[in-house]
This record gives sequence, structure tokens and C-alpha cells, in this order.
Amino acid sequence: MKAAVVLLSGGVDSATTLAIARQEGYACHAITFDYGQRHRFELESARRVAESMGVGRHVTLPFDLRAIGGSALTDDIPVPRDQDPESMGEQIPVTYVPARNTIFLSFALGWAEVLGAFDLYIGANAIDYSGYPDCRPEYIAAFENMANLATRAGATGEGRFCIHAPLIEMSKADILRTGVRLGVDYALTTSCYDTTDAGLACGRCDACILRRNGFEEAGIADPTPYAS
Amino acid sequence: MKAAVVLLSGGVDSATTLAIARQEGYACHAITFDYGQRHRFELESARRVAESMGVGRHVTLPFDLRAIGGSALTDDIPVPRDQDPESMGEQIPVTYVPARNTIFLSFALGWAEVLGAFDLYIGANAIDYSGYPDCRPEYIAAFENMANLATRAGATGEGRFCIHAPLIEMSKADILRTGVRLGVDYALTTSCYDTTDAGLACGRCDACILRRNGFEEAGIADPTPYAS
Repeated sequence: MKAAVVLLSGGVDSATTLAIARQEGYACHAITFDYGQRHRFELESARRVAESMGVGRHVTLPFDLRAIGGSALTDDIPVPRDQDPESMGEQIPVTYVPARNTIFLSFALGWAEVLGAFDLYIGANAIDYSGYPDCRPEYIAAFENMANLATRAGATGEGRFCIHAPLIEMSKADILRTGVRLGVDYALTTSCYDTTDAGLACGRCDACILRRNGFEEAGIADPTPYAS
Repeated sequence: MKAAVVLLSGGVDSATTLAIARQEGYACHAITFDYGQRHRFELESARRVAESMGVGRHVTLPFDLRAIGGSALTDDIPVPRDQDPESMGEQIPVTYVPARNTIFLSFALGWAEVLGAFDLYIGANAIDYSGYPDCRPEYIAAFENMANLATRAGATGEGRFCIHAPLIEMSKADILRTGVRLGVDYALTTSCYDTTDAGLACGRCDACILRRNGFEEAGIADPTPYAS
């Protein structure tokens, strides 16, 4: 059975991506990043999702992006609330974290090389997060090309890394329908950028709005406890 | 004055790279990585080099590559000693750290984006480290291409990132001659993979051998305190 490394944040997208990788026949290992995000509740969600889906190994890698700043997800910049979902993709949001997916994929690549895995799965989505440059298909392709030059296996021709981004063209409703079909328990996941101390999703940040609308559009009951 | 981000390890190559970036007219900021390397002495060297060369900002970013393992530089694998320098490039050494330059450049890219800098300098060298896949010119070019798709500036066309690797085709002796000409104080630098507790370079690991031979070939007095 071939092994894959799955980037697991604890949200809807990465949980669904893990279910897809498993469905595609991979023995899955999961990597989570503790990068000083304000939505720290998701680290616990990642642990629960990994456990419920029987991953082989799950590592959480800590580093502190606050050292370089630049995002509402790590700095003291307010997270936007109550935005119209239609206008979310028009510009790069303040919740964009500079080079985040590149940093995440780089660590995943290093770990994959150690594990002898050649398949990396990331829940990047170009529809909901159309404002994030590192969620576009051309970015994923460029990372894959670079990865095959960066590594021992790429240099020696022992294998070829493939970056899978199965959600990249899917709507949130499609993602949720796929996950439900594959048995994902979305009650274990967290999307909110600004979870309350009591563990309730704010219901008003971009991530909550996309999640709520997704469940509604998919006609699936939303198990999320919202504060508002 | 345009700003540049320079990857600074505390060794000969990155100190020389910083001197070149400064000579090329950039206001330089330096980034150092505390990644659980066994040669921790280099973090102090990086601090001293940054200070002596008047960088604008210097950040040290901690993360723990021991979580993913796979290298003699971070694990309990012995560092090779007394190798013939002629044979060093024949295979990928055990001191290769999976995806290391990719992880380093990714953080540097994120920080550059925050600072509004478009120029990154890395002391990668394809001659001495010919066994490291992520020190080859084709790797650097692929990272640059990916970086311009990964980022806000790349997506909006505000600017274009350039990854400078000015040492990539230079011998260690050429690097040392260049640095001396630009005023680098190599007594502040550290190369050894296995420094003694007393702060002496072992004199026998690949990095020490390359450093010693480089000084000898360049006809420059080696200021390094060696244990043997």
C-alpha cells in the first residue's frame, strides 16, 4: 500500500481531503502546523479528525509565524466579519498568511521524503479562496515541479512527487457532499478563524460564512455550535 | 534603497552572500533558522555576523525538524569524519536535511512579502555540496518560478521575486577571496557540523574539511579554532 502525507488543519477541507486520499487507496499520515494561529481550537480538531480516520502517524509541527507577521490570522489585525460571500474572492483577504501553503507543503515534502512517500494531499480550494494566490492550480503545479528538483528522489530519479489538490475546483457544498459520502464526521472539524473561549464558532468570519452556506446549499444539517 | 532578505546560517557561505547582497546595493535583512541542528553554535555566529555587517532586522525562526527526522544534522546518525574531499560530491550525504532549503526559502519568502522585499539571497553552492539536490541552479530557478505564483505580489503583478544564489558556481577558495575583499570577518563564522562543547570546530567533518582546504587554497590564514 502506497503512503501519502496529508496536510490536516482540522477544518472541513482537509478532513475531506484525508477521506479522499484514503478512498484512493493510500496509507495516510497527517501533518498539522501550530503556527501561532489565533484559531488554536483547530489543533484539537485536527487531532480528533486524525484519530477518527485512522491515520498511521500524525505529527504537529510548531513554528511561530508571528515572528514574520503580516496576517490577520497571526497578528492583531481584526478578522473581517459579516462579509458578503459574493465579494470575498475579489481581493486578497487580510486573512491571507504570506507563503503559508508553501511553508506547509515544504515541511510535508521533507517528511514525505523521510517516510518514502511520494504523494502529498492538500485541501487547497480555488473557488472559496479565490483571493489566496497559493490556492490556484498553477501554483500547485509549480510547487510539484520544484519539489521534484529539491529532493533526493527527484535528483536520483527514484520516484516522482505528486501534489494532489482534489478539492481545488469544488464548491463548499460539493466538498461536504463528498465528505458525507466518504463518512467524514464534520462535527469533529472546526473552520472558524475566531472561535470563542467556550469553543463556539463565531458564525460571522469568512470561514464560518462559507461553512454555513456550504451546509445549507448541500442540504446537510450543520453540526457546528455557533455563538451567533 | 531596495531591500533584500538574506538567509544567514552563521557559516562562511551565508556571511559571504550577505556581503555580496550589501555590495550589490541592497538594504539587507537576515533570517536564521533554529531547526534543532546539532551544530547550535552557528546560531551565535549568525548573530555576530548580522551585527558586524549592520543588517536592518535579524530574525531567528525556531522550528523542530527532529519531528520529521531523516538527517545526521538533526538526528542521532553520526556525522561522517575524515572523508576525502574528492569523493564528497559522489552521493547525497547523510548530512542532507530533507527539503531544508525549500523550508528555509519558504519562510524567507513569507517574510520578504511582509517587508515588501523582492530579492532573496541564499548561499547555496553546487560545487562543494554537489550531493545536495537543493543546491543546484535548476532547483533555485524552479523555486523562483513557484514563488511568483505563491504570493500576493506575484498574483497581482506588483513585483517579481528573484532568488539570488551568487555562490552557486564558486569554489570555496573563490568564496573566501570574495568575502575577504568585501570585508567579511571569517573569525565570526562557524562551519563545523560537530562543534565541541568548548566551541572548537572538530576539524574532521565534511564542513571543516571543505573550510580548511578552502582557506589553504585561497592562501588566506584560517582563523578557526580547531580541536584537531
